Amino acid sequence: MTILDGKKISNDIKDEITVEVQKMKDKGEKVPHLAAVLVGNDGASLTYVGSKVRSCERVGFKSTLVHLPDTTSEEELLLKIEELNNDDDIDGFIVQLPLPPQINSERVLLAVDPGKDVDGFHPENFGKMAMDMNTFIPATPSGILELLERYKVETEGKHTVVIGRSHIVGRPMSILMSRKGYPGNSTVTLTHSRTKDISKITAQADIIISALGIPEFLKAEMVKEGVVIIDVGITRVPDESHPKGYVIKGDVDFENVSKKASFITPVPGGVGPMTIAMLLKNTLLARRQQKKN
Amino acid sequence: MTILDGKKISNDIKDEITVEVQKMKDKGEKVPHLAAVLVGNDGASLTYVGSKVRSCERVGFKSTLVHLPDTTSEEELLLKIEELNNDDDIDGFIVQLPLPPQINSERVLLAVDPGKDVDGFHPENFGKMAMDMNTFIPATPSGILELLERYKVETEGKHTVVIGRSHIVGRPMSILMSRKGYPGNSTVTLTHSRTKDISKITAQADIIISALGIPEFLKAEMVKEGVVIIDVGITRVPDESHPKGYVIKGDVDFENVSKKASFITPVPGGVGPMTIAMLLKNTLLARRQQKKN
Repeated sequence: MTILDGKKISNDIKDEITVEVQKMKDKGEKVPHLAAVLVGNDGASLTYVGSKVRSCERVGFKSTLVHLPDTTSEEELLLKIEELNNDDDIDGFIVQLPLPPQINSERVLLAVDPGKDVDGFHPENFGKMAMDMNTFIPATPSGILELLERYKVETEGKHTVVIGRSHIVGRPMSILMSRKGYPGNSTVTLTHSRTKDISKITAQADIIISALGIPEFLKAEMVKEGVVIIDVGITRVPDESHPKGYVIKGDVDFENVSKKASFITPVPGGVGPMTIAMLLKNTLLARRQQKKN
Repeated sequence: MTILDGKKISNDIKDEITVEVQKMKDKGEKVPHLAAVLVGNDGASLTYVGSKVRSCERVGFKSTLVHLPDTTSEEELLLKIEELNNDDDIDGFIVQLPLPPQINSERVLLAVDPGKDVDGFHPENFGKMAMDMNTFIPATPSGILELLERYKVETEGKHTVVIGRSHIVGRPMSILMSRKGYPGNSTVTLTHSRTKDISKITAQADIIISALGIPEFLKAEMVKEGVVIIDVGITRVPDESHPKGYVIKGDVDFENVSKKASFITPVPGGVGPMTIAMLLKNTLLARRQQKKN
């Protein structure tokens, strides 16, 4: 059994990006510049955005945090996005979700210039992904592909079962794993809350990608010997024996499932750390495309 | 066993649209206007476009055929598309594929105003579909949904197996059948040329949607009792006993599979006739949206 070590791989990727940025600096070129828009003071969002900004600093990117009050109107946010779209110094930007209730997220996503949409959440980019065109792949799915690739996990002709149909993970993973090429060429089954007899389906899977959010949902008796497990679930479970008062649990009963798996991601330290690394990679890509245009 | 009669349903839809158009005329409103761009003289394309124009006439739409020589450059075609985008009288238009080799189809698709893209092939519309937003659904997938709906075929919690991952049918069907709502909420397996042991998968299916293009590929022993069969395959098989010298065959061994099926589409007369009806429906929708803006 091999652990798919997202912490290590994400550090490798950040190191590789640092080298690329240093080369840019050496040539006197502009370095990539990522902006993050945060509306309001949601605790988790503050943590995520802070961590994105720190990662930019680590690899040598320029970063800008646009922090707007939670009373910001949709119109004000759209004006700010227009400004970022038109700012030649900014290569890519993200709008941290969720947005306050007075703002329509769909309208905001559509306002982002697809060429700067390093989250890959603009429908044009999502559609390009589904139609096998070159584009920004959303960070979490992209991180999963990168893990499979770096550990040379075979995917062609394998049966991949995806659990959960969210726009952020399940839906794009089901598309990406069935695309032509590597990692891809899998036969993919997408399961969700309306799926009947899910154990019967997971028991046939060569690869399981779970993005459900139910702690330890996937048990050993639901999988076959040699399965590859990608656990995208991150749930805080209260636990008074820990100093923080909780532990982070994935969707997978790691202790027992890992005994049958050929490859498995731990939680934490698996898919989670990959997400920011892939956001940085998308920003580097955005810089290169801006340069070409 | 019930035949899903696409010929009848497509006529019903055209009749319904005719009534809507008559209401528009009675109120003195502008009627929907569809333009079709055809580059070159490919025989099949001429037939398709001709049939789309005739269908417009039948329901009372205005239609325009833009027929360009096969020597048309990409730049000339893009200029023509720009013109159609800016023509307020035109509610929707399609660019008939395939295009001659000197033209990059991807660039052409991206040039169409998504609000007039009644084929639903612009990545922004494809992405909206995958992200559960309101948009134009491509005609063939939309026709399949309409057939399932009009015959009240249950889809929720069913296992749908899609054969083929083309952008035109397989990929969008796999997305649409797993979306929330009806028809949808299916557990969907997408199979393709790299799938191993496909019979094992089709034998588990409650619904099979085949868009493969191999005549009579799906045999009775590959399906279970009560299966719902949607056959999107259309292949000309030489047959000298027929006056045309060929017969049209679907992907399904109709004679034997139909004995086990609860619902089945014939070929011809199943999915095929639905496609143009749904293009007309999308054009009507485009007219309504133009009116709102």
